[in-house]
Amino acid sequence: MFVIMVYDVGEKRVGKVLKISRKYLYWVQNSVLEGEISESNLRKLKYELERVIDEEHDSIIFYTFRTTRYYQREIMGIKKGGEDNFL
Amino acid sequence: MFVIMVYDVGEKRVGKVLKISRKYLYWVQNSVLEGEISESNLRKLKYELERVIDEEHDSIIFYTFRTTRYYQREIMGIKKGGEDNFL
Repeated sequence: MFVIMVYDVGEKRVGKVLKISRKYLYWVQNSVLEGEISESNLRKLKYELERVIDEEHDSIIFYTFRTTRYYQREIMGIKKGGEDNFL
Repeated sequence: MFVIMVYDVGEKRVGKVLKISRKYLYWVQNSVLEGEISESNLRKLKYELERVIDEEHDSIIFYTFRTTRYYQREIMGIKKGGEDNFL
């Protein structure tokens, strides 16, 4: 499946969240990652994130799709990250 | 159609980008807005944003869908904004 992940977490936890997420997804731009991921890896990702975020202050949204066929993706301005640009 | 918009823009332009975007979409969390929008309003939104962003430094991604049928949306942690919570 394909995932778009957007996070809004406290400054102290940004580094940890990013480090975990980058093991599974690629960085797209500030606070956004994307990628193809298996269901089991998505579960692992969520499990690891749950352990570092503060559930009373932080928020992470996962949009999951079976395929990328049903959406269009358009960038305005510069392309910061992406599949071809692991940082 | 339905739009997820994520922005990564210079601090000086965040306020303007947010003000414009909120006329058309609802705020979900830091750097993320969503909403049902007509094609003509999406064009207006992009036109207004193009006039305020710095295309060499800022990045805005639009994911557009005909319906929300093909994705699942899951929140980890707190729900910050949303359709029922205009800020």
